[in-house]
Amino acid sequence: MRIDEKRFRATFEALTADGRTPEGGLNRPALSRAHLAARHSFAELIAVNGFALRTDGAGNLSAWLHCADPEAPSLVLGSHLDSVPHGGRFDGALGVAAAFEVLLSLRDSGKRLSTNIEVIDFTDEEGTWVSLLGSRAVSGQILARDLDKPRGNPEGFEEALARAGLTKAGILGASRVDEAFRAYLELHIEQGERLESSGTDIGVVSGMVGIFMYLVTFRGTASHAGTTPVKRRRDAAQGASAFALQVRQIVLKHFPDCVANVGNMTFAPGLYNVVAHSATCFLELRSSEGARARQLETALDKAAVYSAKRFGLTVDFKFLEAVEPRKMDFGIQHTFRTAAESLGLTTRTLPSMAGHDAQNMALLCPAGLAFVPSAGGYSHSAREYTSWNSCVNGCQVLLETACRLLVSS
Amino acid sequence: MRIDEKRFRATFEALTADGRTPEGGLNRPALSRAHLAARHSFAELIAVNGFALRTDGAGNLSAWLHCADPEAPSLVLGSHLDSVPHGGRFDGALGVAAAFEVLLSLRDSGKRLSTNIEVIDFTDEEGTWVSLLGSRAVSGQILARDLDKPRGNPEGFEEALARAGLTKAGILGASRVDEAFRAYLELHIEQGERLESSGTDIGVVSGMVGIFMYLVTFRGTASHAGTTPVKRRRDAAQGASAFALQVRQIVLKHFPDCVANVGNMTFAPGLYNVVAHSATCFLELRSSEGARARQLETALDKAAVYSAKRFGLTVDFKFLEAVEPRKMDFGIQHTFRTAAESLGLTTRTLPSMAGHDAQNMALLCPAGLAFVPSAGGYSHSAREYTSWNSCVNGCQVLLETACRLLVSS
Repeated sequence: MRIDEKRFRATFEALTADGRTPEGGLNRPALSRAHLAARHSFAELIAVNGFALRTDGAGNLSAWLHCADPEAPSLVLGSHLDSVPHGGRFDGALGVAAAFEVLLSLRDSGKRLSTNIEVIDFTDEEGTWVSLLGSRAVSGQILARDLDKPRGNPEGFEEALARAGLTKAGILGASRVDEAFRAYLELHIEQGERLESSGTDIGVVSGMVGIFMYLVTFRGTASHAGTTPVKRRRDAAQGASAFALQVRQIVLKHFPDCVANVGNMTFAPGLYNVVAHSATCFLELRSSEGARARQLETALDKAAVYSAKRFGLTVDFKFLEAVEPRKMDFGIQHTFRTAAESLGLTTRTLPSMAGHDAQNMALLCPAGLAFVPSAGGYSHSAREYTSWNSCVNGCQVLLETACRLLVSS
Repeated sequence: MRIDEKRFRATFEALTADGRTPEGGLNRPALSRAHLAARHSFAELIAVNGFALRTDGAGNLSAWLHCADPEAPSLVLGSHLDSVPHGGRFDGALGVAAAFEVLLSLRDSGKRLSTNIEVIDFTDEEGTWVSLLGSRAVSGQILARDLDKPRGNPEGFEEALARAGLTKAGILGASRVDEAFRAYLELHIEQGERLESSGTDIGVVSGMVGIFMYLVTFRGTASHAGTTPVKRRRDAAQGASAFALQVRQIVLKHFPDCVANVGNMTFAPGLYNVVAHSATCFLELRSSEGARARQLETALDKAAVYSAKRFGLTVDFKFLEAVEPRKMDFGIQHTFRTAAESLGLTTRTLPSMAGHDAQNMALLCPAGLAFVPSAGGYSHSAREYTSWNSCVNGCQVLLETACRLLVSS
């Protein structure tokens, strides 16, 4: 079975029209006006094509193709229409467009289905307010306290909820853990350059990396930046700087399978004329194996202590929060590979270094995630680009995989 | 002539009673209630001892001993009663107490004076609102725009002015550039440890260091901290960190006569999961020689370019503002030295690495500044300490120097 390329293109264009930036990217943070406009465009597509539309308390928006059996489980395909501020066109929107094309292709095939097919657009995958909000709500992983400390300011979150006609109670009530799901499939851009640099068509995701966050605070003595000789200072800035360089070196030399980032530092008192008594690094590390993450954490903890001692400082290496690594279903990984091979496409099995809604859907049913190449590895910017040929390849693999799962149901 | 040690001690205690912290320091930022209470205590001392009291539009508070000649110039001695937040007891208050003891000693000596003697407490030496506000106002170096962008928030400055009964117009009108001054003398704690570590009693200040401020901004590319391999990043945090370490190394190795400080860094976007595209270092450097400061600036500029190149970044080395170095009067330096030697005290000539009101008074008349040792070099904290014996030595040198200047008048 083949997808309809022209129709797929038209769907993709329709779903990436709202919130377009002059640079050619998308600026539609979750529940912003541009994001709600994109959802409206998707709802129109659903209605025009005669599918049932469903929304839930978390704002997730679905197109449904029901089979004859009212007790049948659902095969769910999806991704997200929100973007990071000034993000790209392919991150999320490609997955929703491809899932919708699969739905259209399955309907038009006249196949007798023994499962329902649902195409879902999840709310706030990018975490403008709460990371992976929609899929966490669906998989019963969201608590009231998660909604009380959103990433943006709480007032902005309340306003955004009101704009979208949502409530916190609705989000907390959106869990679907009692439903029967056949599987969840998602197509996404890689957002890295492993596929492109190895000349691979399709990435089969083995699992999502675990994400571990820390606050690493170096403490010295505030002193007068004029009268205190440099060699007599206990300068927290020096410890934090040495540590940030060490983080990079340790990952490059000993943990090439992991990544780490010092994305921010805050200094106190933070003045020109006072030696900083405190410098805090925001540290994040990612690994597809929990054990490796713990090894890296140990190595970085040692490096922090070493950097502190070198400048007469103390250091506090504080664990903040973690998203544990999660495996994708082995059977679906295999089906993705054989489906791609049947289409003459090359595959590579690789971990995802970013979080995706698939990791939450994996708690409800077998879940699989496939990648298509990102040119130059760029993502979360207007430079994000995937060739249309790659998009078609990905959509075709998604359809073929869905067909194989439906046959085996 | 000898000072009255007991009386000097009583004056010092009276001037360091207000704003005392539990740790034994002083917390009286300029124009705070505690600072105004200290000024009130000083005004009482002036009145009780029968001196004329004078205040000006900048809030500077003076005790006057007038000589017979209404056209006579003034010998001014002073320092400041304000402190940094949670500062120490000796910074400023010692200088006012010593100046007042010199005034009392000169009056009690029955000497016939041919100059007026003024003891002045300058407003906001520490720059809670505007650095060296009082002495800049007196020496005609303050502009309306300096008052429109105070260091604290503008509303707080307005409130503080109202609390002290001051106005911006009054500050701008406090210039005394048309008056005749014989000289200005100030005693201060060193706030460093050069005197203590060399076992010297009295520091004779050759001049104030110049202070040069820069914003050094490293720019790379924001990218996903999960999907972007570490070796492919253009991480601004790495450039800024490498630069901060270089600043220290360059000063230690090649500019031991200078100091430099990276007191703050700000990152953008400053998130755990995004590689920073921008990192800005707040850089300050100080040197007693303008030429040396320019050499150090050149060396640090090169280091910034090197740090940027190393991580594929660009860098902008932006000059912000400068306080030029200022020499203390050679004659007064000599008088300080001979006065100290006549008292059996050892001296050392050294630049001041911090700013002082004497640098502004130097624009009006010959100005001199003497230091007494700071135990351990601590300052701007409750740990600030100078032995009472050192305080007495400093006050005695101040009196002896004043006497020698009066004789030579």
